[in-house]
Amino acid sequence: MRRSHLVAALAELVAIPSVSSDPNRVADVQRCARLLATRLGEIGLARVQLMGDARRPLVYGEWLRAPGRQTVLIYGHYDVVAAEPAAFRPNVRGAYLYGRGASDDKGPLLCHLIAIGERLRRDGALPVNVRVLLDGEEEIGSPALGRLVHEQPESLRADIALVSDTRMLGPGRPTLVYGLRGKLDARIVVRGRDRDLHSGQFGGVVANPANVLCSLVGSLVGADGTIALPGFYDGVRSDDLADAAARPALDVTGLLGGHTGPGVKGIIPARASAQLSFRLAPGQRPQRVRALLRKHCARPAPTGVSVKLTTAGGRPPLALDPKSPAQRAAARAAAAAFGRAPALIRSGGSIMAPVLFRELLGLESVLLGFALPDDGIHGPVERVHLPTLERGIVASGCFLDELAVLSRVAVAA
Amino acid sequence: MRRSHLVAALAELVAIPSVSSDPNRVADVQRCARLLATRLGEIGLARVQLMGDARRPLVYGEWLRAPGRQTVLIYGHYDVVAAEPAAFRPNVRGAYLYGRGASDDKGPLLCHLIAIGERLRRDGALPVNVRVLLDGEEEIGSPALGRLVHEQPESLRADIALVSDTRMLGPGRPTLVYGLRGKLDARIVVRGRDRDLHSGQFGGVVANPANVLCSLVGSLVGADGTIALPGFYDGVRSDDLADAAARPALDVTGLLGGHTGPGVKGIIPARASAQLSFRLAPGQRPQRVRALLRKHCARPAPTGVSVKLTTAGGRPPLALDPKSPAQRAAARAAAAAFGRAPALIRSGGSIMAPVLFRELLGLESVLLGFALPDDGIHGPVERVHLPTLERGIVASGCFLDELAVLSRVAVAA
Repeated sequence: MRRSHLVAALAELVAIPSVSSDPNRVADVQRCARLLATRLGEIGLARVQLMGDARRPLVYGEWLRAPGRQTVLIYGHYDVVAAEPAAFRPNVRGAYLYGRGASDDKGPLLCHLIAIGERLRRDGALPVNVRVLLDGEEEIGSPALGRLVHEQPESLRADIALVSDTRMLGPGRPTLVYGLRGKLDARIVVRGRDRDLHSGQFGGVVANPANVLCSLVGSLVGADGTIALPGFYDGVRSDDLADAAARPALDVTGLLGGHTGPGVKGIIPARASAQLSFRLAPGQRPQRVRALLRKHCARPAPTGVSVKLTTAGGRPPLALDPKSPAQRAAARAAAAAFGRAPALIRSGGSIMAPVLFRELLGLESVLLGFALPDDGIHGPVERVHLPTLERGIVASGCFLDELAVLSRVAVAA
Repeated sequence: MRRSHLVAALAELVAIPSVSSDPNRVADVQRCARLLATRLGEIGLARVQLMGDARRPLVYGEWLRAPGRQTVLIYGHYDVVAAEPAAFRPNVRGAYLYGRGASDDKGPLLCHLIAIGERLRRDGALPVNVRVLLDGEEEIGSPALGRLVHEQPESLRADIALVSDTRMLGPGRPTLVYGLRGKLDARIVVRGRDRDLHSGQFGGVVANPANVLCSLVGSLVGADGTIALPGFYDGVRSDDLADAAARPALDVTGLLGGHTGPGVKGIIPARASAQLSFRLAPGQRPQRVRALLRKHCARPAPTGVSVKLTTAGGRPPLALDPKSPAQRAAARAAAAAFGRAPALIRSGGSIMAPVLFRELLGLESVLLGFALPDDGIHGPVERVHLPTLERGIVASGCFLDELAVLSRVAVAA
């Protein structure tokens, strides 16, 4: 019964190509938002509304009828990254539902909606107060959420946030994430003349933007993976360096310049550019990395060449205390649902929402995700493991119960 | 009279889009070759024929009726680099004829044909023996010419080669080039996984091909233009380093990898590649540079990443003795035609023919070109200065006379 309901509800969401990075998909994003709003109303949430950016709305609903109890802000996102059209035709094979967004993040967010719906149907009430907030822009950095928490922080007032957008270590291995890396995107554009020059005539005479770019980027990245930006590692603890999921990283994510086709063209390119992605460990701040990078890129360029640096997507790392009452409540809920105490890990990824919640709402997040490592998130073939989602539904309900216990403890104290 | 003839003959050649790098232009290249063969016959050359590759033929004609006199091999090329269609509609504005190939190299080669035609019409004979060879593949490295000089060296037997494919320092400043840089093209491809990976999940864990490429290329090029390849400068004389046209150079001519569009994509690219162009100074050999580069690129790459190097277009530098009898004969001819002694310079470019002539025929070349620095060779708007070509016609005839004097000196000696 629960499986067929889960499959039907998830397939309906996966079938909508709610790709936030594609301007041609705005109508699909909006359609997905309206469907979710309908579902929030159906399960019994109040004040259901679309908030933020009308093109890619935040979907909100609440149940705040447990005075004196804690309030949990359940966050998920219904936008997805781009995929071939076939990826939006959901299908079930064995224990898996295939399709873009099945695992990131439509399946996990659905766990919470189903858990809430079941409780309200069964008990007519929830053990704690709940706000549900579903983001339509997570994959593009959650700009509307950023504005919302900045401008109307009271609208999201809560005691704890629950975010299910991380991975488990494997099937049957529940996982609580207590750290996320920070992030900074950078773009370096080196410009020379307004047109390509003949390298026979001008090679060795006129400075080459592509040479300058390679020299500059090459001075940032060591072949062994170390980052050579002076001062970059300051403040990073040595045990974080030993942790692959917490270690800072610098990846060249894109390179473009000059002749890129087959054959050979003897030119000094007019311009060359690189895209860089920094991942930051605890102790690092994007603002400081930006300043270090700016200083490094300000080194004098050869005559006739200009170096332009732009940065975006700055996001500090997130460090949570795995021993906090909320994290321990989540660990108990996960253990109850999966029959095994959760692993406590740090993740290499970066999610904006928990950072915004901490920085602007002073709100601690619980990162209890239901994705598996081989779900193929962002890949051509994404899927989700349905039995794991079913455990996720149980875990979500148990977490509300555990929060209710915490509420009583708080009242008693 | 000479101007109108020059304009008509050059416009007819420019109008044919004989682009050697474009497989769709083979018929045009062939058409240009047939037209030139017709013209060679009309001016009085014998044994006119198309040689080498039938797709992009070498056009040959000879006049060998001056026994005991020197033989000059006049080399030019009728192929051109690609351009917009409008560039193949020749037009005259002021002292210039505009159109692709007008300066590189249809105009200069026409100087020789007109000079020969005028002499044969006036005198019924030439002062020396002449072979004319017009290449249809200069812009793509002259492969058929390479085969011809290798397989039938006797068919091009001569005492001196005359090549007009270089530039003058300016209008009225005749220029003899006594050095050309060598050349080596290289391509470095760095491969990682078979698909892009998520940089949040794998950044700092899995080696990034674009990082490895930037680190490798960055280790080859100094920001100040120096080349950091170990051993690269061995054998280069310090006064050649001080000469912009003889100084070796390394240019990154192309870069490609990962995300190259707008916005940001957090990926570890599956592959990244760079195109490099080396220009070589006297004392450097492409074979040796290739070996040094191969050694440098063979440094151990991080696990999971492979580095592949391919090279092409190797061509040794050319150094001529500006005091040789033939160069001094050319200098006298240029002085007679332009009213001023020619500048003796080295050029940064690389032309295959004189290298092949030296290496395989033991033949010295005279590099007396009629292009001007602002002719826009290989650029969108190419043109040629008609009064300079007229001086070129005179210089070509004078050079034949000067060779006749050399012949008599040789006979007397």
